[in-house]
Amino acid sequence: MAAMMKALVKRNPEKGIWMEQVPVPSPGPNEVLIKLEKTAICGTDLHIYKWDPWARSRFHPPMIFGHEFCGDVVAIGDEVETIKVGDYISAETHIVCGHCYPCRTGDTHICRNVQIIGVDRPGCFAQYVAIPAGNAWRNDSKLPPAIAAAQEPFGNAVHTALATDLTARRVLITGCGPIGLFAVGIATASGAERIFATDVNPRRLALARTMGASDPLDAREDPVAAILRATNGEGVDVLLEMSGSAPAIEQGFGALRPGGFAALLGLPGRPLPAFDLANNIVFKGATVYGVSGRKMFETWYQTRGLLASGKVDISPIISHHMPLVEYEQAFELMIGGIADKVALYPNGM
Amino acid sequence: MAAMMKALVKRNPEKGIWMEQVPVPSPGPNEVLIKLEKTAICGTDLHIYKWDPWARSRFHPPMIFGHEFCGDVVAIGDEVETIKVGDYISAETHIVCGHCYPCRTGDTHICRNVQIIGVDRPGCFAQYVAIPAGNAWRNDSKLPPAIAAAQEPFGNAVHTALATDLTARRVLITGCGPIGLFAVGIATASGAERIFATDVNPRRLALARTMGASDPLDAREDPVAAILRATNGEGVDVLLEMSGSAPAIEQGFGALRPGGFAALLGLPGRPLPAFDLANNIVFKGATVYGVSGRKMFETWYQTRGLLASGKVDISPIISHHMPLVEYEQAFELMIGGIADKVALYPNGM
Amino acid sequence: MAAMMKALVKRNPEKGIWMEQVPVPSPGPNEVLIKLEKTAICGTDLHIYKWDPWARSRFHPPMIFGHEFCGDVVAIGDEVETIKVGDYISAETHIVCGHCYPCRTGDTHICRNVQIIGVDRPGCFAQYVAIPAGNAWRNDSKLPPAIAAAQEPFGNAVHTALATDLTARRVLITGCGPIGLFAVGIATASGAERIFATDVNPRRLALARTMGASDPLDAREDPVAAILRATNGEGVDVLLEMSGSAPAIEQGFGALRPGGFAALLGLPGRPLPAFDLANNIVFKGATVYGVSGRKMFETWYQTRGLLASGKVDISPIISHHMPLVEYEQAFELMIGGIADKVALYPNGM
Amino acid sequence: MAAMMKALVKRNPEKGIWMEQVPVPSPGPNEVLIKLEKTAICGTDLHIYKWDPWARSRFHPPMIFGHEFCGDVVAIGDEVETIKVGDYISAETHIVCGHCYPCRTGDTHICRNVQIIGVDRPGCFAQYVAIPAGNAWRNDSKLPPAIAAAQEPFGNAVHTALATDLTARRVLITGCGPIGLFAVGIATASGAERIFATDVNPRRLALARTMGASDPLDAREDPVAAILRATNGEGVDVLLEMSGSAPAIEQGFGALRPGGFAALLGLPGRPLPAFDLANNIVFKGATVYGVSGRKMFETWYQTRGLLASGKVDISPIISHHMPLVEYEQAFELMIGGIADKVALYPNGM
Repeated sequence: MAAMMKALVKRNPEKGIWMEQVPVPSPGPNEVLIKLEKTAICGTDLHIYKWDPWARSRFHPPMIFGHEFCGDVVAIGDEVETIKVGDYISAETHIVCGHCYPCRTGDTHICRNVQIIGVDRPGCFAQYVAIPAGNAWRNDSKLPPAIAAAQEPFGNAVHTALATDLTARRVLITGCGPIGLFAVGIATASGAERIFATDVNPRRLALARTMGASDPLDAREDPVAAILRATNGEGVDVLLEMSGSAPAIEQGFGALRPGGFAALLGLPGRPLPAFDLANNIVFKGATVYGVSGRKMFETWYQTRGLLASGKVDISPIISHHMPLVEYEQAFELMIGGIADKVALYPNGM
Repeated sequence: MAAMMKALVKRNPEKGIWMEQVPVPSPGPNEVLIKLEKTAICGTDLHIYKWDPWARSRFHPPMIFGHEFCGDVVAIGDEVETIKVGDYISAETHIVCGHCYPCRTGDTHICRNVQIIGVDRPGCFAQYVAIPAGNAWRNDSKLPPAIAAAQEPFGNAVHTALATDLTARRVLITGCGPIGLFAVGIATASGAERIFATDVNPRRLALARTMGASDPLDAREDPVAAILRATNGEGVDVLLEMSGSAPAIEQGFGALRPGGFAALLGLPGRPLPAFDLANNIVFKGATVYGVSGRKMFETWYQTRGLLASGKVDISPIISHHMPLVEYEQAFELMIGGIADKVALYPNGM
Repeated sequence: MAAMMKALVKRNPEKGIWMEQVPVPSPGPNEVLIKLEKTAICGTDLHIYKWDPWARSRFHPPMIFGHEFCGDVVAIGDEVETIKVGDYISAETHIVCGHCYPCRTGDTHICRNVQIIGVDRPGCFAQYVAIPAGNAWRNDSKLPPAIAAAQEPFGNAVHTALATDLTARRVLITGCGPIGLFAVGIATASGAERIFATDVNPRRLALARTMGASDPLDAREDPVAAILRATNGEGVDVLLEMSGSAPAIEQGFGALRPGGFAALLGLPGRPLPAFDLANNIVFKGATVYGVSGRKMFETWYQTRGLLASGKVDISPIISHHMPLVEYEQAFELMIGGIADKVALYPNGM
Repeated sequence: MAAMMKALVKRNPEKGIWMEQVPVPSPGPNEVLIKLEKTAICGTDLHIYKWDPWARSRFHPPMIFGHEFCGDVVAIGDEVETIKVGDYISAETHIVCGHCYPCRTGDTHICRNVQIIGVDRPGCFAQYVAIPAGNAWRNDSKLPPAIAAAQEPFGNAVHTALATDLTARRVLITGCGPIGLFAVGIATASGAERIFATDVNPRRLALARTMGASDPLDAREDPVAAILRATNGEGVDVLLEMSGSAPAIEQGFGALRPGGFAALLGLPGRPLPAFDLANNIVFKGATVYGVSGRKMFETWYQTRGLLASGKVDISPIISHHMPLVEYEQAFELMIGGIADKVALYPNGM
């Protein structure tokens, strides 16, 4: 194994990233070292790249970032028993404490002391990454890397979409970024009766149709009215909110039927300026569930059940593939809204 | 039976009510006629009395109002089979259509075409009232009228409090009006480990303690900090929001632990000005349930299980008892915040 | 409308049925009269035909039987408001009392005083049938009659299969009669990761594959071992028991993973001779749900969501179509295990 | 700390136990060493003492046994971070693998590779015991040892009783051994409307009344008929089966209402000879849940919520207290059915 590797480092507290030569990490006693096959850019990475207020308050340079990946285990720590060299793995990026109340009651996804790979410790935009063995998820050797690396964000969509039953139900997905598009695919695979999907970007709405949406709707053209017309005035059974946009949230609740279920993954950047709690939730007798991360590891088993079996094909959403060294172009494609999901290959394509 | 009766009529579209002599109603084929033993004043009735914007938009004078009551059946319609003369009954006040989606799927409490006794048709501030037989709830003859008449609002508290398990859990009840106080009593009977209750009215906080609250807290003195201190920084497992007040809602979510459950009954009069969806629900992985009315009739069975068995004693909350003719005083006691719950006796005490 | 009609009558308490001329029924005030387009033979009908012990204890001749059907409303009673002449309907066959505890708490499917069309009152093996308006389910005019008439038994499969989430899960269906085959189709539409289906009849196992089963298994060739091999020793997440056969039940629980969910629809004809409660349920931490009828009307909405939308195609299961007058042959095809589902046309094909 | 200690050792594969001097265990890197304050005898220990078929198939002498205890931490391993010397602890006795499907999905209580303290590794009938730090549960210093040591079996009752809501419901507990009696206390604290409890031992039925049962019933005198009479023919909402006895299980299901919930903890020693699945579960639309161990650690938090807060007082069930050296008498009291729960003090009372 090489002693040095290429890595994308957030070197300075300002816009940008820098490719550097850094030492290959050495795994601790409970860690495994992975030679990265494929990584992908997440929205979080854009915040770090752009150095926006969220990044400034949360991220501490210098640090290698990136957290969506797959690769092969090339070394393991002394106390690792469940993973071995040669395993082909992806990773749950939340490293949990194991001691807080959520951790001790099966809700590790909302651990109060969570550390995130690529945010709180070195990430995967590099040729190698070391992670705790407990965060490694062993893939079937036949799973294509392009899919294996996308399981982490796909898992967010799984956690959201399968928070309630979708079979034979009418579903609205607000926001058709990559995770919203994943959710469209999951709703399709789940046998949803009808799938409404909203966005303002025509390319994304076209992708929503590709993923199975029966009704891609422009969010600027009164989608609530269209949904009520299409459902005999009843509205949708389930809302999957993936945008974090205040108008989309309002539309989502507006289209939700009495007694409906809403799973909320999108994060509004600031408090909603006028949230109609009485009509959106109380009078409706609605149930609302906040989605954070992935259930460990129930979500991963479900993800495997959907991807490895071919129930959902996410390849249309991975719009670009390029070597890691072309990271500048990759980030600009994402920021420009031209790419949906960019796959980066640190050790050659 | 007399041909005429005394009744409180909202005669004109302005503040006030008028006691009049009106004909005793005649029950339709599927209705029962009840000689009223006891009625009580609800917050809704205050809106109608004061003729505020909500009342103006919803209520159409002239109409007898009032909807919390108990009494004896004195006549039944030709097609009534399940209720007989002499039955001692209380009433579910939501008359449902039976044909909409919620009605056809067991969620009649959110019927899309609901009619409310005392709002959409003549109510119980009178000596007699006629209601559909299907809305009658037969009481045990030993249940005191003071309790029998309170089952309708108590049912709102039951629906809210039993929306999740309270046994061995830490519960926060925001708002100690009559329904909040009922909820305190239900949480106590349910074996909640610790019960926090907030309000700004010291008399109500004292009543909360009487009903079993371990920690009555003044809402103006940072109750969130007090709750976090008392729970080792964890927060409460369950929030029962009974106030509809924006600051109370914010405090409630602030004190809710990750993975917690919130049942919302209180109705904000207008959209919340700044609702922090990301921190209140999404990051927390919280589950939120909107409460409308009472589940028909599961809530009524639960209510019977709690009141008839003596598990909850609500007599401290029924602060005043007076004949119906003293209605002016009764309404003013309620409006002044001096009374919690006023019982009115239309046919003598 | 004709005054007389052809009907299959169970005239005498002995094996057989008799086609007779009987008066067209006259709908009561809350009933609708339906001109039948298509009916189908259910397992219950075979019991009545064969006059086995169950039939003798439950059915009281003379009576027209049959309960799976669709047709057009040709007359309505005076008090019917929600159905009109010309509506194309199918029917929920359980007529419920509305007054017992299950009925009053949204569980009408387990009404304690249920009356069944075709068992307790005249059924649909005739040219016309009268049913309560509340039991009529309005179909989209585009739904083919062959599918419309099958919604009642399909609903049993829906109630069973959707008692828990199937998406991304491993499912075992024991028993591939028509309802088991429907369940295979529903599991397929729901995105189950892998679908095991057992039976002893090769034709039915072939149909199970047609409906989407990944692993049709001969129940006589140790399917539990095959399932454990196929699932890395873990077993299935969900068991849908559709056979009522004691060995199948034992196999089903044997293949269920710890923490799994079992929905039981099949009815053993007698108590199980040796049920290993400790290993089948207790040690496993399993959850078991007994399925009776269809949830009114949630199951019907789900059925519509699966059939009208084309998510499940049940046409391969309706193996024979014939006019009602050929009933003798139809019953013998069913009894001989040659037919899966026979459609009968009372008013011409 | 002493080098040697007294311990009860199952020395030979035959009836009996032997008190011996053995080395004080030395904690491994992730273990803690506890000086035992109080231990208690469980039914499992009786099997081992009597050396019955179950014990012969499961237990491998020589081994110290016993698994209900509390005590103070006197030494910790090098890698222990969450427990410190001086902590006053009780213990979850299931040591789980962390790698199987149930462990990875939050269901550690049904770990496929569980090791049990006092069965698979040395237990607590001794002056000291070493356990993994992850199995230690820190008690409030004010919790009496008599209660602290009973949390493990009490947790079985908590897991069973709180598997569904008991508030305002009618509950039947079949079997009034210590865990059944705990369950009676929990149902009482939960605000159950009415609590039926069956056993054949009059002393235990008297204790059931002490713990809050409204209706202690002799299991030999047709308790099903008594329950149906007492519930207007409806039956109980919830069955908590704690006996493992075939007739009690049959009675329990016989008394369960349609749509009811049954939690099964009792372990029949052999398959049930005639289990009426159709009437007990299917027709009833019942839900049945098998209970194994305690949810880690949700059950422990609930246990704390019930015991530390004084909601349930279990002292009447701990019938005898004696020093560990009087173990012979203690075991004979248990086997003779004279004692309910015997507390043993290894280091002086």
